[in-house]
Amino acid sequence: MIIVLKPKTSKKEKEKVIKKIHSLGLKTMVSQGVERTIIGVIGEEDALRVQPLEAFPGVEKVIPVLAPYKLVSREFKPQNSVVKVKNVSIGAKQIVIMAGPCAIENLKTLRAIAKSVKESGATVLRGGAFKPRTSPYSFQGLGKEGLKMMRDVAEEYGLVSITEVIDPRDVDLLAKYVDILQVGARNMQNFNLLKELGKIKKPILLKRGMMSTIKEFLMSAEYILSEGNFNVILCERGIRTFENFTRNTLDINAVPAIKMLSHLPVIVDPSHATGKWELVTAVSKAAIAAGADGLIVEVHTHPEQAASDGEQSLKPLNFRNMVKEVAAIAKALKRKV
Amino acid sequence: MIIVLKPKTSKKEKEKVIKKIHSLGLKTMVSQGVERTIIGVIGEEDALRVQPLEAFPGVEKVIPVLAPYKLVSREFKPQNSVVKVKNVSIGAKQIVIMAGPCAIENLKTLRAIAKSVKESGATVLRGGAFKPRTSPYSFQGLGKEGLKMMRDVAEEYGLVSITEVIDPRDVDLLAKYVDILQVGARNMQNFNLLKELGKIKKPILLKRGMMSTIKEFLMSAEYILSEGNFNVILCERGIRTFENFTRNTLDINAVPAIKMLSHLPVIVDPSHATGKWELVTAVSKAAIAAGADGLIVEVHTHPEQAASDGEQSLKPLNFRNMVKEVAAIAKALKRKV
Amino acid sequence: MIIVLKPKTSKKEKEKVIKKIHSLGLKTMVSQGVERTIIGVIGEEDALRVQPLEAFPGVEKVIPVLAPYKLVSREFKPQNSVVKVKNVSIGAKQIVIMAGPCAIENLKTLRAIAKSVKESGATVLRGGAFKPRTSPYSFQGLGKEGLKMMRDVAEEYGLVSITEVIDPRDVDLLAKYVDILQVGARNMQNFNLLKELGKIKKPILLKRGMMSTIKEFLMSAEYILSEGNFNVILCERGIRTFENFTRNTLDINAVPAIKMLSHLPVIVDPSHATGKWELVTAVSKAAIAAGADGLIVEVHTHPEQAASDGEQSLKPLNFRNMVKEVAAIAKALKRKV
Amino acid sequence: MIIVLKPKTSKKEKEKVIKKIHSLGLKTMVSQGVERTIIGVIGEEDALRVQPLEAFPGVEKVIPVLAPYKLVSREFKPQNSVVKVKNVSIGAKQIVIMAGPCAIENLKTLRAIAKSVKESGATVLRGGAFKPRTSPYSFQGLGKEGLKMMRDVAEEYGLVSITEVIDPRDVDLLAKYVDILQVGARNMQNFNLLKELGKIKKPILLKRGMMSTIKEFLMSAEYILSEGNFNVILCERGIRTFENFTRNTLDINAVPAIKMLSHLPVIVDPSHATGKWELVTAVSKAAIAAGADGLIVEVHTHPEQAASDGEQSLKPLNFRNMVKEVAAIAKALKRKV
Repeated sequence: MIIVLKPKTSKKEKEKVIKKIHSLGLKTMVSQGVERTIIGVIGEEDALRVQPLEAFPGVEKVIPVLAPYKLVSREFKPQNSVVKVKNVSIGAKQIVIMAGPCAIENLKTLRAIAKSVKESGATVLRGGAFKPRTSPYSFQGLGKEGLKMMRDVAEEYGLVSITEVIDPRDVDLLAKYVDILQVGARNMQNFNLLKELGKIKKPILLKRGMMSTIKEFLMSAEYILSEGNFNVILCERGIRTFENFTRNTLDINAVPAIKMLSHLPVIVDPSHATGKWELVTAVSKAAIAAGADGLIVEVHTHPEQAASDGEQSLKPLNFRNMVKEVAAIAKALKRKV
Repeated sequence: MIIVLKPKTSKKEKEKVIKKIHSLGLKTMVSQGVERTIIGVIGEEDALRVQPLEAFPGVEKVIPVLAPYKLVSREFKPQNSVVKVKNVSIGAKQIVIMAGPCAIENLKTLRAIAKSVKESGATVLRGGAFKPRTSPYSFQGLGKEGLKMMRDVAEEYGLVSITEVIDPRDVDLLAKYVDILQVGARNMQNFNLLKELGKIKKPILLKRGMMSTIKEFLMSAEYILSEGNFNVILCERGIRTFENFTRNTLDINAVPAIKMLSHLPVIVDPSHATGKWELVTAVSKAAIAAGADGLIVEVHTHPEQAASDGEQSLKPLNFRNMVKEVAAIAKALKRKV
Repeated sequence: MIIVLKPKTSKKEKEKVIKKIHSLGLKTMVSQGVERTIIGVIGEEDALRVQPLEAFPGVEKVIPVLAPYKLVSREFKPQNSVVKVKNVSIGAKQIVIMAGPCAIENLKTLRAIAKSVKESGATVLRGGAFKPRTSPYSFQGLGKEGLKMMRDVAEEYGLVSITEVIDPRDVDLLAKYVDILQVGARNMQNFNLLKELGKIKKPILLKRGMMSTIKEFLMSAEYILSEGNFNVILCERGIRTFENFTRNTLDINAVPAIKMLSHLPVIVDPSHATGKWELVTAVSKAAIAAGADGLIVEVHTHPEQAASDGEQSLKPLNFRNMVKEVAAIAKALKRKV
Repeated sequence: MIIVLKPKTSKKEKEKVIKKIHSLGLKTMVSQGVERTIIGVIGEEDALRVQPLEAFPGVEKVIPVLAPYKLVSREFKPQNSVVKVKNVSIGAKQIVIMAGPCAIENLKTLRAIAKSVKESGATVLRGGAFKPRTSPYSFQGLGKEGLKMMRDVAEEYGLVSITEVIDPRDVDLLAKYVDILQVGARNMQNFNLLKELGKIKKPILLKRGMMSTIKEFLMSAEYILSEGNFNVILCERGIRTFENFTRNTLDINAVPAIKMLSHLPVIVDPSHATGKWELVTAVSKAAIAAGADGLIVEVHTHPEQAASDGEQSLKPLNFRNMVKEVAAIAKALKRKV
């Protein structure tokens, strides 16, 4: 950590800052510049992180040198992590395709979608039973009834299942019915939920908040790992920007950036990242080319009757073609679908 | 709601869309333009809102005409709402000052801060017992112990108390100890939490998410009102932008904008909106001048020892001066502190 | 165009709006909804675009239906445009690689870089002679001297040349020395410059402003086409967002989105879009996978001595590997480098 | 400047960096931390600023300590600067009100507006003769004809005149006709234009780019001052964010922030900052309360016939009331209109 003092800071003020640092068991190294004094801190920076050094008179700014995350970092674990669920490995050579409806609506539709995405190459079935909706008047999901449908249909078609959890009180229930628990963008900083998920062993798919930096994203993953659950998959799903032609802006830079900073697998959600089904195939190919380990895609047999997100859902035929095009990219990278 | 069709949409596709609208009990009015066909929908727009019309072949875009919120809107209730808690009225002529530490640290410090802010003109004591922190390794608050301190100190100094709730499981506990429950920016779209808060009668201070639109903000308030609790205070606390000299960007436009759209009281948090104590007084005056009904300010007797947010906390003397300057503005507006 | 009236708009106000529209030679179609009146406008929408209808009493909002650009749109020209310069075609099957230093520094370095990028597969040499720099104290480019070096070196190695123009007074000078003129992000809305570029016949590479929407980007291209120059190449180079790990956020969605809306070729600048050379290869592959027609990449033989942008420049060896990896992606798409 | 090295940087790499710094006549101070080595640079930081140290192997990041601007900084000149034009002083005790139409349309309208704003308390008349418009098909201004009208009308009513310059070739022409030259948001980084404006003596009103940080804003002002023209007025006019209810987001924090960092006067444009005339009065009061030295407001006698920006223009009566309300705020601050 580096502390920059304001010009004209008094000797007494300077000494107060240094004393504070020493009191935490850290050493200091003072550089007297032409216009500014700089204090370098030597030792375990974490001891200082929680101290409001910027509130000391004379302190102009405090610059952390080390990343605040530990367990998720590549420095902690240089090799890629692979999350295994049944016969599916996420973060290995194979690109994993997760697909399904935004919300579970009824058994018949879910079965039809599951059958179709399985045939096209998906290995994981997605679908929401508890839906976080902007409006209290929108469809909120089938709840437990939906979980049962998800379990039955996933088993019937030999698919791994994933669904979203939005309440810490539901963690045990969901863990009973599905294989992977998903944290949505709006809950990325619902820290109590993250802590509960750190206590179970099931894999967690953590979506990046639409307003969260890569650093905050990794810190949220750190919450889960720090409770003991290392089975975390990160998902870039688009961030909010000024551009409004698309629903969100897929932060494609984040894919190689996270791979550089962390050992965790990274997948991309092209459906929410664009909000337009016409763009889904192109950005899916881009995501894989950038190094993503998989995709989570909204597919519906009848998007125009979907209970939500119809405008960004692919129809089965388009999905099939998308998987084929993604497979060609994967092959060029010496990976496969 | 207005539906714009793509050029070259077939007659059959057009009829499918119209049939769908009619099946929901709505009427249509079709305008055949030079390049586009436009379908105006007449009737209760809500019936259509949940339908993925954009997924119909031939539909280019769907434009809602009415706001999606009802109970929070000024059309629903033209007069300003006033939220009353003990002897404090929020949204009335008097500007309400809420002040206190970011986190409750210990009884002695809390008492000292409470005494000081009371003397300077604050009527509400703020302080966090459950802290949502970006890092799992940061101080997470004193929990129930902190709530008790808050209750005792607020009573001792005749202050109304406010603290943050971050978990739906804690709502009843907090309601027992404090007067106003606060929803933080990170939980603005924690819908299950909002629903629980709609079921109690205590006033709720809802902070705007740092990357939430005004419309989404009002929709989140709608969640609380739609469950029966109309005692909601809205709080603008700065949004996330590309500017990084300040911690956030106070959206001052939002103050008169929300006043125009909604009847609910609006207050401003100048501490989080700037992240720099040097700017707090200036933007506090701006907030009141723009029409805000109050302020929620971080004050600490020793910011350099604060467990969090020290760099944006005012010292008691600065806070006193701030209140004086704010009072002068309030007087110019024929309001008072 | 659709005009939505406020509730309780008087009959007289409504008639004033309709009269205004009729006075422009347009027809109206009025839909009387339950809560709002909607006026659909039939005829050439452009006549209305410049009219401040929102300033009429009673008007709540005005919603344009048609895109404001004409000549750049796919509706105007459904086939992809190909921009030809010497032996290079941009927008055709072959992926075009433009590479070179940020700034032209001296003849020796430029020759070394040109030789190296040519050998690796680039066909266009980039390099700035007039540099727009945030600070007046930074290196501002070699000016005319640099242009001559660019011309000589490009000819020596059989490369097409591209350089940035920042002043309408320089257009003729640059057109004499280089093959493609580039408009930088900061000048995307320097409309007088765009008009001058519309009057010449040389190809123009137009970079997207870092905070410009896709629509504004296309409107700026429209300025050039509307003056008669259809040889425009669009370049996505990253937009400004809250994320600060990277210099900008590459808007990968924009690649297929622009392809959908416009017939013009689209290339991507992975160097500015990331600001970190370590990420350049991954996002270059992503750009091509998303459908881009080429790349413009910063390459320097000695980045640590570069006069600007050293941290995002690839070294020749890394560039060579990048081109190879991009070529594999291109092949998977049935294109080639 | 501080240079942070990556873990495991070799001794040789470290020495290369240090050698480079020494070669520029600077001293170094090396702190060997537990995980990172930090190099503090002592001496004139500017020598290093243009060097791409981040491109050196082993360098993780480079952190500048000093602000890159000099002449605009409060460290350079601690007292507030006052810009004087005829009988108007900007940056002194009196709040300056600039008002007028977005574009100069014809003599009659301009005279009517000038008369009205003068009576309400404005001392500066605004109006555009050269308009930068997003669309090439929109009204582009009356040009030289408009300048003459502006000069004549300003003289007739004893007002100071201000108009926008968009092309370096027009600077001399404009300087002949008007008192203050305005640089619009889209041209804030049109550096050649800024340089030309630095060579004249007339006051320059520099608007913040909608995508520019406070630091970049001050750097652009530095361009003008560094050429010798110290008569610069800064104007905050709203930045672009994700919020779309308003046209832009007024960055009210920027007012006290710039006052802290710079000695230059600061005014606010509430018309562009909101894009809605209904919000203009509230945010004008906020701007003055936050410490702004003046306002620049769009006023039109018939907004519904305005050639541009009608929806954000105040009518004369609303403007008169706005000035009264602003005057009450000014009085509370011991300033006056």
